[in-house]
Amino acid sequence: MEDIYGNLISSLAIRNDRKIVLLVMDGVGDCDNNGNGTALQMAKKPNMDALATKSALGLAIPVAQAITPGSGPGHLGLFGYDPVIYQVGRGVLSALGVEFHLEDRDVAARLNFCTIDAIGLVTDRRAGRISDDENRRVLQKIKVGLKPPAGVEVLFETEAEHRAVMVLRGDNLDDHIGDTDPQVTGTAPLAANRAPFDKSKTAAIVADIIAQVQNILAGEPKANMILARGFAKNPALPKLAQRYKLNPAAAAGYPMYRGVAKLLGMTLIDKPTSALDVATVAVKAMQDHDFVFAHFKYTDKTGEDGDLAGKIGRIEEMDAALPILLAAKPDVLIITGDHSTPPSMKSHSWHPVPVLMKAPCIRGSKGGCCEGFDEVACRFGELGTFLSKELLPLAMAHAGKLEKFGA
Amino acid sequence: MEDIYGNLISSLAIRNDRKIVLLVMDGVGDCDNNGNGTALQMAKKPNMDALATKSALGLAIPVAQAITPGSGPGHLGLFGYDPVIYQVGRGVLSALGVEFHLEDRDVAARLNFCTIDAIGLVTDRRAGRISDDENRRVLQKIKVGLKPPAGVEVLFETEAEHRAVMVLRGDNLDDHIGDTDPQVTGTAPLAANRAPFDKSKTAAIVADIIAQVQNILAGEPKANMILARGFAKNPALPKLAQRYKLNPAAAAGYPMYRGVAKLLGMTLIDKPTSALDVATVAVKAMQDHDFVFAHFKYTDKTGEDGDLAGKIGRIEEMDAALPILLAAKPDVLIITGDHSTPPSMKSHSWHPVPVLMKAPCIRGSKGGCCEGFDEVACRFGELGTFLSKELLPLAMAHAGKLEKFGA
Repeated sequence: MEDIYGNLISSLAIRNDRKIVLLVMDGVGDCDNNGNGTALQMAKKPNMDALATKSALGLAIPVAQAITPGSGPGHLGLFGYDPVIYQVGRGVLSALGVEFHLEDRDVAARLNFCTIDAIGLVTDRRAGRISDDENRRVLQKIKVGLKPPAGVEVLFETEAEHRAVMVLRGDNLDDHIGDTDPQVTGTAPLAANRAPFDKSKTAAIVADIIAQVQNILAGEPKANMILARGFAKNPALPKLAQRYKLNPAAAAGYPMYRGVAKLLGMTLIDKPTSALDVATVAVKAMQDHDFVFAHFKYTDKTGEDGDLAGKIGRIEEMDAALPILLAAKPDVLIITGDHSTPPSMKSHSWHPVPVLMKAPCIRGSKGGCCEGFDEVACRFGELGTFLSKELLPLAMAHAGKLEKFGA
Repeated sequence: MEDIYGNLISSLAIRNDRKIVLLVMDGVGDCDNNGNGTALQMAKKPNMDALATKSALGLAIPVAQAITPGSGPGHLGLFGYDPVIYQVGRGVLSALGVEFHLEDRDVAARLNFCTIDAIGLVTDRRAGRISDDENRRVLQKIKVGLKPPAGVEVLFETEAEHRAVMVLRGDNLDDHIGDTDPQVTGTAPLAANRAPFDKSKTAAIVADIIAQVQNILAGEPKANMILARGFAKNPALPKLAQRYKLNPAAAAGYPMYRGVAKLLGMTLIDKPTSALDVATVAVKAMQDHDFVFAHFKYTDKTGEDGDLAGKIGRIEEMDAALPILLAAKPDVLIITGDHSTPPSMKSHSWHPVPVLMKAPCIRGSKGGCCEGFDEVACRFGELGTFLSKELLPLAMAHAGKLEKFGA
């Protein structure tokens, strides 16, 4: 798929000293809560509301209408990469999620411990959701017992509960490998090297590893087998420095977001997680970088937990820290999310995400309607409803980082 | 053309029991009428207006900006098929319009009776708009007189006035056949088998049939020749069951809409035409189906007739029947049109179509503006202005029928 828009923006990008800060309040978008409005509408956030009156507002669609994005695609969109064109394999996202340093030659897969019966049929795809400790114990057993195929290093990392990551390291590995997870119980795990994967040497290696693991785990009461899926190599995504001539840094504390930032060539500064730290570290990062990605996780986490009051509180926490960022006077400051996470749904959703952009040369809303920073006011904002991948280009335009197209 | 969006939605679709009802008020959109607003604005429709306050509103563009859709493309968009990618030939649409059961091997064409002069030049492309009875009489004459080419059955159906449908049935037929309608008078009908159609065996068969018809009709005062266009085979459109994992049914009374529904694999339930019957049959269809297309024709017909009062009355008729649908509690209820048909234009138009979607997890309009269900209120709704092909995916998202994209 040709990246027509991204290539066009790339061809117009120029470097200057003006600074763009992208503050991501993860999963900030919400639905209505029993007629009381959204979390943003309920939160007391005087700083953001005041900023909104001097800013451009809009709604961003992370991937496409009706699509609920995972965190990977959600962030790629915010960084100006069409998430449908730039797909990152599940195995790679899992490796990023445990902050595993992937080499270009590595092949990563997501593992589930599972339970199989005496004749090898899967009875529980999650091995009774074993504890993290149990996961580490069984993984250690595999590490000790496994005889790695010649020329290949096999690495494992615990993720949580029944989930783990496997990485194959070696020269000339490929990722044309079948998922072994049958997705249903009552059937045997699939062979990684079944057709059409039977031409892949790496698939044969994986099949051997899984057969060894089955022997090693025989006798385990719950986690007596593994299911693997999403085999993928590190996609060589164009770095932000080449693509948009930015010198980017990330102020992010959680592995997944640090991983995606690193994929795009951002410098990781510290590991902030609280709103105060995220704002403080972002200001620090502004010293040497003209694009700073600042990530605040807890607006998503509270949404996933169905904790509306918690989400409101986290928005207020971020609002209280906002003056720190404003005092550093970024030329362009964006406040948005990577997707919506309505507490009423306890999950990510497809709803467009509110965007606030404080920037030079905004159009303003004289004669318009609706004040403050929330999902409804953003519907009437000057940025309209647009695709997330257009947001960083818009910020670059406001920062004078895009040349005119044509004479 | 690759169906990037449709394939993406298809890859995320999952089956569940939640029910989506799509109520199409054909051609419902309107323009302003002498400063009095649109038909929707003038109609007294308390049920729809009350529903609008609890629903997501928006405007749907059926094909693309500025494009006036026919009924076929208008409905394909609503069913989540990009009408530019999934084109159904005019011959096939005409066959569907007379509820002709097309086999996969059939080739259908739209016929016009026309008048030619003594040296074979077309003098009237519509044969003086002969009556339906006259159409049937002349068609019978052709049926009796025609000697079908070997291995081919030739079938005819009256449509109305000068319009008819011809279907060729036989093995290995193709549809690379030239339109014979020259589109202007004073010139002879074109040869179906002219270059670049001269490689087609079927084009030669058509040329023979048309030569025979000219002989059979010689001596007729008006309808002494036929013009054929839009030769097409039944396009093997992906069925809704495969594409979106829906189990679809249609409550529609008119042939064209029943035909398009059938093309996509919908089960046809009864033949309702009045608003009351459409609502009642839709509820019946909900019992065994998770997607129900309910079609109300008369909002379009009154628009085509330039009958504003009639259109307002038909909207009120549908509004009065709405409680029947609401009582059945569909999880998602959409009320919209396939296109706009302003009475002032007496034709379909390109104007975006108002959409109301009653669904779980809506965002709401707290602090927003504009109440009721009409073209202006929909402009300010949470769905924004979007492409019709995105509407069914949005409904599926609200019904929990789409998985997350990426991890």
